[in-house]
Amino acid sequence: MWSATDTQMMSRAIMLARRGSYTTRPNPNVGCVIVDSDGAIVGEGWHIRAGGPHAELHALRQAGDKARGATAYVTLEPCSHYGRTPPCAKALIEHGLKRVVVAMTDPNPEVAGRGIKLLQDAGIEVQSGLLESDARSLNPGFLSRMERKRPYVRVKLAASLDGKTALANGESKWITGPEARRDVQRLRAQSCALITGIGTVLSDDPSLNVRHAELGGLGNSLAEAELIQPVRVVLDSNCRISPKAKLFGIESPIILVSATPYEPELLKALPHFVSTLVLPAGDGCIDLAALLTHLGQSCNLVLVEAGAKLAGSFVEQALCDELVLYQAPKILGCHGRDLLQLPDYQTMDAIPSLTLMDERRLGQDRRFVFRLAAA
Amino acid sequence: MWSATDTQMMSRAIMLARRGSYTTRPNPNVGCVIVDSDGAIVGEGWHIRAGGPHAELHALRQAGDKARGATAYVTLEPCSHYGRTPPCAKALIEHGLKRVVVAMTDPNPEVAGRGIKLLQDAGIEVQSGLLESDARSLNPGFLSRMERKRPYVRVKLAASLDGKTALANGESKWITGPEARRDVQRLRAQSCALITGIGTVLSDDPSLNVRHAELGGLGNSLAEAELIQPVRVVLDSNCRISPKAKLFGIESPIILVSATPYEPELLKALPHFVSTLVLPAGDGCIDLAALLTHLGQSCNLVLVEAGAKLAGSFVEQALCDELVLYQAPKILGCHGRDLLQLPDYQTMDAIPSLTLMDERRLGQDRRFVFRLAAA
Repeated sequence: MWSATDTQMMSRAIMLARRGSYTTRPNPNVGCVIVDSDGAIVGEGWHIRAGGPHAELHALRQAGDKARGATAYVTLEPCSHYGRTPPCAKALIEHGLKRVVVAMTDPNPEVAGRGIKLLQDAGIEVQSGLLESDARSLNPGFLSRMERKRPYVRVKLAASLDGKTALANGESKWITGPEARRDVQRLRAQSCALITGIGTVLSDDPSLNVRHAELGGLGNSLAEAELIQPVRVVLDSNCRISPKAKLFGIESPIILVSATPYEPELLKALPHFVSTLVLPAGDGCIDLAALLTHLGQSCNLVLVEAGAKLAGSFVEQALCDELVLYQAPKILGCHGRDLLQLPDYQTMDAIPSLTLMDERRLGQDRRFVFRLAAA
Repeated sequence: MWSATDTQMMSRAIMLARRGSYTTRPNPNVGCVIVDSDGAIVGEGWHIRAGGPHAELHALRQAGDKARGATAYVTLEPCSHYGRTPPCAKALIEHGLKRVVVAMTDPNPEVAGRGIKLLQDAGIEVQSGLLESDARSLNPGFLSRMERKRPYVRVKLAASLDGKTALANGESKWITGPEARRDVQRLRAQSCALITGIGTVLSDDPSLNVRHAELGGLGNSLAEAELIQPVRVVLDSNCRISPKAKLFGIESPIILVSATPYEPELLKALPHFVSTLVLPAGDGCIDLAALLTHLGQSCNLVLVEAGAKLAGSFVEQALCDELVLYQAPKILGCHGRDLLQLPDYQTMDAIPSLTLMDERRLGQDRRFVFRLAAA
């Protein structure tokens, strides 16, 4: 069904789509390549930023008249609805494309096959499903939001070989090296929201922002002005946050989530970019599933950077899709702080089921990426 | 100083020496290559088994008359003393070698330069130090025994990603996969002694032997009859061992080490291949340094397969030279059993200093080998 050219061109479209990884959210990453009847690329593009032109429009502008009779390779079904830009399916029809190959249909209920239908109704040959799983891997967060009504959740952990995140007294500077810490900045830059717990805020007083100077090589291809700061979400069930926390020193959205409402005096002391959310689970804790449903309205990828208790809750409640573990070649000993607070499992069958997706060295440390069986 | 031929031939001698890894103990691994004046290999050999011919004799027998005027490459200084075999230096002289290149001098006080002196006195040109560090790596145990009067100590550990060796209830079958478990058999087969603690004996009731059927590929090149079972050493400070332990079901030396003497009735109930040793440290524990001095009389490599307490003691007392960690891609959670019982360190400077020597994948697991700063 697919020719070598088809596969090659869709691979290129996927590669182009990836260039938007840090800037398109909450929109998906999409790439497009237009190829004329001689097999020459006459236009290509990728979605750069929400509100800006879609990948197809970039490619069509470049192709101009050469799009007539050509084939377009798009990593996601062209849209059929008027959003901040006119529908791409319409633009492809107007430019006289002969054939459109899409990697996957758009699970967005506003599209969901309608884009393909529009094209077909205009007499364009449409084929779907080429390199679909690669195309899906471009947008784990967007697809989760569309298909499961919640973000794709990554839990980030850093530990020693013996699974300790700090000494008993809390000392942990630095378990991992600068390469691993740069990589965490990269993860943050990809995320729509960062979730942390009040314990981390009270003990470490972090800013939880993306620091352009600490992005390493990525900083060269991504200007500071293009960086989108993730929404910072603090889980503070018992309303312990202080208005003096460093978090508030950076003017960028913060959501304080608690199990009971905050005192009005505290709310008055907080800056304008802070909002609050009361999501009790009934046991004094916060309802994490409800939180994810809330964040699923606008967040694709969520990064959890928290202590053993909160990180463990995400894993235990099967609300963690991916575990990113930075492991330093050190031994901290039995008194150190544990990685994940989990139930007292009685059999080896009961432990979480992990699938290794990626493994690499970062300086002296290792980064493991595991997929977890989610709810 | 060294020609390309010199380096090539010594590399070959080192490769040959390695073939004795499982059988020469307590003797060192030694290889020898004899090269005639045209650069052709006329004889080669390696030390196979203590009591049998040394590497040089194997090579000389193969070379015969062609040894006259040739160069011998030996990974360790030829011996000068009458042991179970006549001195190799003498044999090299008798065969009319012109030049002898040795990788390193023999730290054995019975040799220690005398072999080289014998050769030189006979008018043979002798050069020393070619690929010395590679040659040293052939014999960490033998060199430790000669230079430090104690064995080279490896501590083997198997754990999950979060550094747990078992669930809280002791369940640990199987954290690591079959490849890792085969590799442990290989480590055992290299070791002169295995050290374990009474806790492990009471809870797991292991046989602690090398099982030929579980050696994997190594079993093909090493016949069952060639296997030397390591001496099994059980640290049993409070004399808790039972004569019914599975250990006693295998007729091969066992040393029971305690802090106070065993009751005569128990001793009578033990089989003939069991000996005892009382080594109190003063605090109710066993004096590990004294144990290593004792084992240093005849043991090159010692493998510690023990729980968090005993393994931690070796690390804490700087009596562990090498840590071999098998890590399974699993998460057992905070209730699991810890890897190493170590002091409650107050600063990150105080944690053990590890140097990564080797890292590889074994099935789904990873094996890390670390060198530790030893006492």
